[in-house]
Amino acid sequence: ATDPPTTVAAADVAPTGHTTTVAVTAKDMRYHPDTITVPPGDRLVIELTNDDERRHDLVLANGARTGMVERHGTARLDAGVVGATVEGWCSLPAHRQAGMTLTIVTGAGTHMAADEHGIETVRDATAPTTPAEAVHRVDLHVKEVQIEVAPGVRQLMWTYGGTVPGPVLRGRVGDVFEVTLTNDGTMDHGVDFHAGALAPDQPMRPIDPGESLTYRFTATKAGIWMYHCSTMPMLHHIGNGMYGAVIIDPPDLAKVDHEYVLVQSELYAGADGQVGDLAKMQAEQPDAVMFNGHPNQYAHRPLTATAGDRVRIWVLDAGPNRSSSFHVVGAQFDTVYLEGRRVLGPDDPGGAQVLQLGPASGGYVEAVLPESGHYPFVSHSMVDAERGARGVIEVGPA
Amino acid sequence: ATDPPTTVAAADVAPTGHTTTVAVTAKDMRYHPDTITVPPGDRLVIELTNDDERRHDLVLANGARTGMVERHGTARLDAGVVGATVEGWCSLPAHRQAGMTLTIVTGAGTHMAADEHGIETVRDATAPTTPAEAVHRVDLHVKEVQIEVAPGVRQLMWTYGGTVPGPVLRGRVGDVFEVTLTNDGTMDHGVDFHAGALAPDQPMRPIDPGESLTYRFTATKAGIWMYHCSTMPMLHHIGNGMYGAVIIDPPDLAKVDHEYVLVQSELYAGADGQVGDLAKMQAEQPDAVMFNGHPNQYAHRPLTATAGDRVRIWVLDAGPNRSSSFHVVGAQFDTVYLEGRRVLGPDDPGGAQVLQLGPASGGYVEAVLPESGHYPFVSHSMVDAERGARGVIEVGPA
Amino acid sequence: ATDPPTTVAAADVAPTGHTTTVAVTAKDMRYHPDTITVPPGDRLVIELTNDDERRHDLVLANGARTGMVERHGTARLDAGVVGATVEGWCSLPAHRQAGMTLTIVTGAGTHMAADEHGIETVRDATAPTTPAEAVHRVDLHVKEVQIEVAPGVRQLMWTYGGTVPGPVLRGRVGDVFEVTLTNDGTMDHGVDFHAGALAPDQPMRPIDPGESLTYRFTATKAGIWMYHCSTMPMLHHIGNGMYGAVIIDPPDLAKVDHEYVLVQSELYAGADGQVGDLAKMQAEQPDAVMFNGHPNQYAHRPLTATAGDRVRIWVLDAGPNRSSSFHVVGAQFDTVYLEGRRVLGPDDPGGAQVLQLGPASGGYVEAVLPESGHYPFVSHSMVDAERGARGVIEVGPA
Ligand SMILES: [Cu+2]
Ligand SMILES: [Cu+2]
Ligand SMILES: [Cu+2]
Ligand SMILES: [Cu+2]
Ligand SMILES: [Cu+2]
Ligand SMILES: [Cu+2]
Ligand code: NA
Ligand code: NA
Ligand code: NA
Ligand code: NA
Ligand code: NA
Ligand code: NA
Ligand SMILES: [Zn+2]
Ligand SMILES: [Zn+2]
Ligand SMILES: [Zn+2]
Ligand SMILES: [Zn+2]
Ligand SMILES: [Zn+2]
Ligand SMILES: [Zn+2]
Ligand SMILES: [Zn+2]
Ligand SMILES: [Zn+2]
Ligand SMILES: [Zn+2]
Repeated sequence: ATDPPTTVAAADVAPTGHTTTVAVTAKDMRYHPDTITVPPGDRLVIELTNDDERRHDLVLANGARTGMVERHGTARLDAGVVGATVEGWCSLPAHRQAGMTLTIVTGAGTHMAADEHGIETVRDATAPTTPAEAVHRVDLHVKEVQIEVAPGVRQLMWTYGGTVPGPVLRGRVGDVFEVTLTNDGTMDHGVDFHAGALAPDQPMRPIDPGESLTYRFTATKAGIWMYHCSTMPMLHHIGNGMYGAVIIDPPDLAKVDHEYVLVQSELYAGADGQVGDLAKMQAEQPDAVMFNGHPNQYAHRPLTATAGDRVRIWVLDAGPNRSSSFHVVGAQFDTVYLEGRRVLGPDDPGGAQVLQLGPASGGYVEAVLPESGHYPFVSHSMVDAERGARGVIEVGPA
Repeated sequence: ATDPPTTVAAADVAPTGHTTTVAVTAKDMRYHPDTITVPPGDRLVIELTNDDERRHDLVLANGARTGMVERHGTARLDAGVVGATVEGWCSLPAHRQAGMTLTIVTGAGTHMAADEHGIETVRDATAPTTPAEAVHRVDLHVKEVQIEVAPGVRQLMWTYGGTVPGPVLRGRVGDVFEVTLTNDGTMDHGVDFHAGALAPDQPMRPIDPGESLTYRFTATKAGIWMYHCSTMPMLHHIGNGMYGAVIIDPPDLAKVDHEYVLVQSELYAGADGQVGDLAKMQAEQPDAVMFNGHPNQYAHRPLTATAGDRVRIWVLDAGPNRSSSFHVVGAQFDTVYLEGRRVLGPDDPGGAQVLQLGPASGGYVEAVLPESGHYPFVSHSMVDAERGARGVIEVGPA
Repeated sequence: ATDPPTTVAAADVAPTGHTTTVAVTAKDMRYHPDTITVPPGDRLVIELTNDDERRHDLVLANGARTGMVERHGTARLDAGVVGATVEGWCSLPAHRQAGMTLTIVTGAGTHMAADEHGIETVRDATAPTTPAEAVHRVDLHVKEVQIEVAPGVRQLMWTYGGTVPGPVLRGRVGDVFEVTLTNDGTMDHGVDFHAGALAPDQPMRPIDPGESLTYRFTATKAGIWMYHCSTMPMLHHIGNGMYGAVIIDPPDLAKVDHEYVLVQSELYAGADGQVGDLAKMQAEQPDAVMFNGHPNQYAHRPLTATAGDRVRIWVLDAGPNRSSSFHVVGAQFDTVYLEGRRVLGPDDPGGAQVLQLGPASGGYVEAVLPESGHYPFVSHSMVDAERGARGVIEVGPA
């Protein structure tokens, strides 16, 4: 729909003869990605998809523009040969000011859309099924690994099993968990399972790199329980990725159509490729708040359901510091379970809009999603939603 | 009780021959107003009323003073002809240091006491009665309007219907709400009603200026539900005034003597007359925390009741960011309803001092106010009470 | 195990011929004390006890070192004659970076280990027994006193009875409390008892220094209720120490083996020996978060129990500003009472890991501590645990 601009971005760049094509999505008043790196001299073509609920366009400072793109519409923009930084924006009233901007920069290598990275590492939020056996043997290795925690941001995370959060464990009241913890890292680590009651002295002791310990507990009480590193300062070890959830099913837990687990936590980014910034944790200045370890990941790769489905979402607030006001847009919780008790059921005339959680508390909510569409979920502490504590449940037709 | 000072505030001002008289109230260790603007050359007379629970006086830097004023006493102070700024304070030990100060400045126009402005715009906190009809047709216009959000502070607020919060809607379980939203503003706005369950895609879509949409939902569950703008960034739209409450009566809701609604929210002031400051919202640095859109308004114009009355207060925490610890001084809640369930009733031997709410949650509390007097209410997160999340219930004799 | 260093810390100090001996404990990745003051010219001997769950050593910058010290091991280090500041640290990987450091400075007087000071003033957390009488006459004197609120930090605290928090009062539903409040301070103070319902006007009025008032209330509802100063700004008066708890027993309260009371609050330190810093309170930047008025005190002097004991802990969040996520490591709460209602009992299949409290709310939790060992308790808002909201329950063999 647009002609290539007659003026290229910089006259003094030697055209390479190559074309870089980048897919850009407009959604939630943002372009994704919002920074595009092009080898200097490449021609850039942007394929814009408007996945937002209103119209947008894309205008570049060099004069190229898409024209208006309707909801779910697409447009192709030839940006010309790029030799220098070029700014872009949506020309609708207030959209640019609201942050709907994009920057094209030149640099080595071809563009890897940030969201595509994200998609590679999206965490499956489906709750594990409850295993049949009454004794759960779990091999848990502490690994210090580089993780792309947010588009373009790599951190040296301390993890259980290489992922943040660690694996979701599940069982029934009375089950025994026999966890072998092995420290494959470079410093002391340990683990504290809230799901069991025992003297912390031995099982929760931090162990040296290369060592193992066996942590055996009986799950005598139902709930969704946090586990996390027991090494001081715990603020740093939890803040740098060492947490996870254990679900012990209440005896009367009904079957539902979809069952998900979301662990909310904060990201306090350190220098690129380094561990999280303890000073930011102490100052309570998170860079992101997220579900299952990655800000906004389920906004790009939604949870799924079918119209009419009853969906259960287990939510654990791993903190280390912030509370959660968990909410699903378009849904009302008719069932709420909080810290070991069901506080609301479908027969109650009342419903809940929020599951309120403090750090290290958890529960589940249930809702029937009445029709097909996109149901965002957030921490309704809005500053945290903006930081990345957001996702979407995509509900297909029945 | 005082003689006019022999030295006027500034010798070089031409007396106008006019007298400006200003009523000042001492209350809660503060003078109200605490800034008085007088046309240069006017004689200033201050009529001081001590509405505090202890004695105060008022001393001016030019030597004028009231003498001690007992509780509920009054005094008249002739400040002389005012030609320059004059400071005033209470001379009792520690009162000045605690902030009991006042400033007289010269300026154009006569004084308009800040509190008198506030009184003009005080929001009626009385809960609307539940309409008889089962279908509620609501015409909701988004208006971007100048509002005096705090004494002397004007902001360009984004509103539902011209007020912050928007109107309180009310109905019964099973009722239908048919809301026609019209965007009379200059940018996209929308609405999200927590009170209904539906696919957000169409009804919650942001609409362009000049457009309308119809949002139809059935209220299948009881509670006090938030509504708010659905345009991104929601932090900005909620933070700038776009929120309100829908009450869906629980089936067994008893009649009480007085029923009020308080919506707690934060103010993040932008430049004078401009929209709220998004950066402050992101940094979680509110300028005020308030009930029904105006800090301290019910400290000056109390809610009312009669001794022995049972009072119900619905409270919704609209955030966007902060929790509430709602408390009524002198009262104990014998009935508490939180997020769709009654968690405490008059027959329970226990009582509650606080209704704990996270952003986007709500409920109600009930108390019998046993005798006549003044019962302050606050968010007992004291920093927020000081920021304006305070008011008073004035209880008259039975 | 170590030889005295051949080079003393500073060549130009005249040896006194005296030896200062200081006991240092390694625990939780910290040395206690972590600052040692030695008269210049004294020889310093450090007796190191490793009370941590892993190995540590202590290396000084002047070359003295302990060698590795196993868990529960001890070592003696001759630091030589000290004439200037000497740094020390643990040489194990990452321990120094994690904060395991110590500083020796020269100064007047001999060293008084900070923890020893703390121990002198540790607050007994045992809940008072419920007195038999139905009328409780309480003599409450407001005292403005110097308190060592944290090791080495003295503050002029405003107190009820000379301690922070004030005394724990206890009674039954229907009991009458007749409190005589006397203001022995230098400014207005008052009191607000959440435990009673009455018009605040007279009983809660601030009174002048030297005055008394009688505050009479009937405890008609069970719970753990806050009391605090009623003088404005309350943020300052609560933030500077004027708070306490009243327990009104629920009628069905079972006997347990140990019953404790923990009041969580924040410390906003002012200048040394001065009152707390109101600006820090307004900025929500606490220096410490603590149980019963002293950060970490029960980490050094644990609460006690015996294996198999049922322990009840009453917790009140006095704020003034922060919420609590109260948790006991190694324990699961099978019984939870929150704001006047029991929400979980031993027969429920679910358990709770956290008691979530907002400012001015309270409740109790119960757990059976299954075996001997050390069970830390924290606010699981980890930044607050690091600030001092931590302690330990030491459980001995049955
Ligand atoms: Cu746009
Ligand atoms: Cu760890
Ligand atoms: Cu005064
Ligand atoms: Cu809006
Ligand atoms: Cu060490
Ligand atoms: Cu006080
Ligand atoms: Na535990
Ligand atoms: Na997410
Ligand atoms: Na909704
Ligand atoms: Na107010
Ligand atoms: Na009270
Ligand atoms: Na403590
Ligand atoms: Zn994206
Ligand atoms: Zn670790
Ligand atoms: Zn919402
Ligand atoms: Zn005022
Ligand atoms: Zn809007
Ligand atoms: Zn209070
Ligand atoms: Zn210590
Ligand atoms: Zn006071
Ligand atoms: Zn924990």
